[in-house]
Amino acid sequence: MELQSKKPHDSLVVMTELVLPNDTNVFGNLMGGRLMYWMDIAAALSALKHSASPTVTASVDNISFANPIKLGNAVHIEAKLSRAFNTSMEVHLKVWGEDAIMQYRYKSNEAYYTFVALDANGKPKKVPEVTPETEDEKKLYDSALRRRQLRLILGGKMKPGDATELKALFMS
Amino acid sequence: MELQSKKPHDSLVVMTELVLPNDTNVFGNLMGGRLMYWMDIAAALSALKHSASPTVTASVDNISFANPIKLGNAVHIEAKLSRAFNTSMEVHLKVWGEDAIMQYRYKSNEAYYTFVALDANGKPKKVPEVTPETEDEKKLYDSALRRRQLRLILGGKMKPGDATELKALFMS
Amino acid sequence: MELQSKKPHDSLVVMTELVLPNDTNVFGNLMGGRLMYWMDIAAALSALKHSASPTVTASVDNISFANPIKLGNAVHIEAKLSRAFNTSMEVHLKVWGEDAIMQYRYKSNEAYYTFVALDANGKPKKVPEVTPETEDEKKLYDSALRRRQLRLILGGKMKPGDATELKALFMS
Amino acid sequence: MELQSKKPHDSLVVMTELVLPNDTNVFGNLMGGRLMYWMDIAAALSALKHSASPTVTASVDNISFANPIKLGNAVHIEAKLSRAFNTSMEVHLKVWGEDAIMQYRYKSNEAYYTFVALDANGKPKKVPEVTPETEDEKKLYDSALRRRQLRLILGGKMKPGDATELKALFMS
Amino acid sequence: MELQSKKPHDSLVVMTELVLPNDTNVFGNLMGGRLMYWMDIAAALSALKHSASPTVTASVDNISFANPIKLGNAVHIEAKLSRAFNTSMEVHLKVWGEDAIMQYRYKSNEAYYTFVALDANGKPKKVPEVTPETEDEKKLYDSALRRRQLRLILGGKMKPGDATELKALFMS
Amino acid sequence: MELQSKKPHDSLVVMTELVLPNDTNVFGNLMGGRLMYWMDIAAALSALKHSASPTVTASVDNISFANPIKLGNAVHIEAKLSRAFNTSMEVHLKVWGEDAIMQYRYKSNEAYYTFVALDANGKPKKVPEVTPETEDEKKLYDSALRRRQLRLILGGKMKPGDATELKALFMS
Repeated sequence: MELQSKKPHDSLVVMTELVLPNDTNVFGNLMGGRLMYWMDIAAALSALKHSASPTVTASVDNISFANPIKLGNAVHIEAKLSRAFNTSMEVHLKVWGEDAIMQYRYKSNEAYYTFVALDANGKPKKVPEVTPETEDEKKLYDSALRRRQLRLILGGKMKPGDATELKALFMS
Repeated sequence: MELQSKKPHDSLVVMTELVLPNDTNVFGNLMGGRLMYWMDIAAALSALKHSASPTVTASVDNISFANPIKLGNAVHIEAKLSRAFNTSMEVHLKVWGEDAIMQYRYKSNEAYYTFVALDANGKPKKVPEVTPETEDEKKLYDSALRRRQLRLILGGKMKPGDATELKALFMS
Repeated sequence: MELQSKKPHDSLVVMTELVLPNDTNVFGNLMGGRLMYWMDIAAALSALKHSASPTVTASVDNISFANPIKLGNAVHIEAKLSRAFNTSMEVHLKVWGEDAIMQYRYKSNEAYYTFVALDANGKPKKVPEVTPETEDEKKLYDSALRRRQLRLILGGKMKPGDATELKALFMS
Repeated sequence: MELQSKKPHDSLVVMTELVLPNDTNVFGNLMGGRLMYWMDIAAALSALKHSASPTVTASVDNISFANPIKLGNAVHIEAKLSRAFNTSMEVHLKVWGEDAIMQYRYKSNEAYYTFVALDANGKPKKVPEVTPETEDEKKLYDSALRRRQLRLILGGKMKPGDATELKALFMS
Repeated sequence: MELQSKKPHDSLVVMTELVLPNDTNVFGNLMGGRLMYWMDIAAALSALKHSASPTVTASVDNISFANPIKLGNAVHIEAKLSRAFNTSMEVHLKVWGEDAIMQYRYKSNEAYYTFVALDANGKPKKVPEVTPETEDEKKLYDSALRRRQLRLILGGKMKPGDATELKALFMS
Repeated sequence: MELQSKKPHDSLVVMTELVLPNDTNVFGNLMGGRLMYWMDIAAALSALKHSASPTVTASVDNISFANPIKLGNAVHIEAKLSRAFNTSMEVHLKVWGEDAIMQYRYKSNEAYYTFVALDANGKPKKVPEVTPETEDEKKLYDSALRRRQLRLILGGKMKPGDATELKALFMS
């Protein structure tokens, strides 16, 4: 049976959290690990919506933390599928902090989490393809190939020399 | 200085949570108290966005729990201002459960939380008025008067006989 | 089989909690949602004692938060049955804060949570009636009818015009 | 200034907790460490009531865990002062489990926690004496001397040969 | 079947925790109950390694808290078997605080937790003996007899007069 | 003032956690986000020991989750500095699961977290260099350059063509 392709918007998950004392470091800023925990849940729910199957986190791409999010601020996370590869799904996440007292919202970071859908026996299971709609979604869809090659290389499953997408990048 | 009125959409907060084991009762369903905790945070952030001031929960209207939300399901909460009364804000909340495996979303409950904005000295502080836009927002804005009278009566701050809005209801 | 009626005291639950940093808002006061979570657990245990059955939260009546409870203070909750209606139980809760350093105890709020007892198949199950003993318990027992009508109206299950108990109140 | 002596009942703290999934071991029973955490909070609040000062846990006497408390059961803790020694307070705790479905309550354990009251500079501070009232309170008051000697010996602050109260016990 | 004896080192568990706001009292120091919770988990894992069976906390010996551990400091716990008695295991724990900014590490306390190994039916199950190696391990092994007698006396399972190991101590 | 170089072992942090129900997904396996939270704390403590300064998470390299860690199993994390770059520190982490009942330990994953040390004004602050000792530490020290270039490229702070270390890799 052919699985019908889905749009990124079908898997959109919007999460908001409040930074509480126990989430912060000595500077009163949100700890990176706490944020990655919330991002993992948002991304898992997004992959769940896309695949209609339980999913497990397979990998997380490099995350860089730019602007610290302060105690009492809100954290906004948006997660949606950027591309699917047979049984795995790349979820793109955007994170903002919001200081509602000062009425401004600031970009915190951006990340890619990869999930695998599992069947009732815990075996990887085919998931629908992704059909990007907006310009941004199309760019994320295209660059997903490059990120996948990097993941395979870093995971020791592909030789750098075979990563044609990435190689082009370094040659330029 | 006159505060500029704001739209309900300006205070929209969208929250998603995953129901984990510790959130559930012996039936594996989300405990009511845990849900009210999340709703309080979503509503507080909404009041914070509207007033640009720290806020405290003043009261919660009658909440009735219809469909239980199950372990592993997602909880979606949408909170936005329905009306403001000088220093207090009524936040309207809608809650859904989502079973992503079965790909359906179900209404859980609806509620009204009231918050008061405070200044630096912890004294109540005037907040912007609300200008409803959609039909639903206008209905919520109008019915807010009735809910407010009920709150005042239940809080012992108004005599039932003086609640003109409510009285009409019981006479009909 | 006739269930033997029980006294409110049979379902008394006394709970004490310490307000920790993560329970507080930016003013260092207990968040309303955190308190409602504790109240839900105290009330559920009270309904459990009365019915000897697992119970689920059916509704929560209007709660108004008067005196904020501070970080480091104790929260005292007393929950007991006020009245039972076939398969549902109304639990009356009283909440105090206590500042032990200053050696004083202050009323925080009062509330009514309603629970339904469930049998092994998750179906509502008949519970024992309540026989009030003290003057206060008798008042709570009598006024329970009025609160129930209000709940039914607010839940859209009764027309205001049919709420004879409530109607009398607004006519006066 | 002479501090007025207080009754054990003045420092009574009654705590009830519900055993949730995260509190349990693989057998679905409450973990000992989680119970000791709750007991510490109940005992600290009791010492706080007695001394009207912030307090810190100085020591915990041998605790033996008899009957396991099961997931979904209630934990009841009663804490009150048994005796005070200048700046330190011995708090006596009794713990029960309650299976409300089966309508029975079972003794879990009994313990003694010792707290020290501190002044604003963090220095130990004199606390009121304890005047026991009931027979049980008097026994606890008397046996406190023996427990104190044992604590001092175990803490390396007294030689066994000098522990007259304890010595008598071993001679008999 | 004879169980092969194990070394204390085989059951070594090293745990590090960071003291977060919710773990602290009003002085910003780690609460005793929170520490006992972590110690229980470290000790349970140690007993689990020794016995290759699920274990339950049977008792905790007198613990005395010397140096407070501060907010933001690290807590280091080392747990390993000191001796086994048929179906029960005594775990010896050492706890340090570490202030990494000031680059010093300080002893917090030392304790003995006792666990019982259980079989699939929840019945106590024989565990391997302990063969101490270092001088410290041998001392802990020898003194375990004395601590066991004290536990039995305090638990009402032995008369003080029969505690030969302990008696000698008080006679000296 | 010249900061004295430190060995990787000086910043070693060993952490053990028990997987509890709330840490798991529907398969009863540790959620990736929860593990990344613990890894962040272990790595932060390691960077803290190296720099004797408060630190903040700057970035996390690609993490791939191999073997799921099960409910009731132990998680072991070892974190130590692999290399320092002026004000930033790369921490290398190794994670194992341990099923003590079955008496085996399995590799879960490996990761690199990068931290920045901050002074009292929250400005980046120079940290000691790292002097690797063992063969493994030397390899990690050398490969740190390559990982750093990848981080800079992924963070948009270096052009792929300028990443000499990485380029060599793709050319081969």
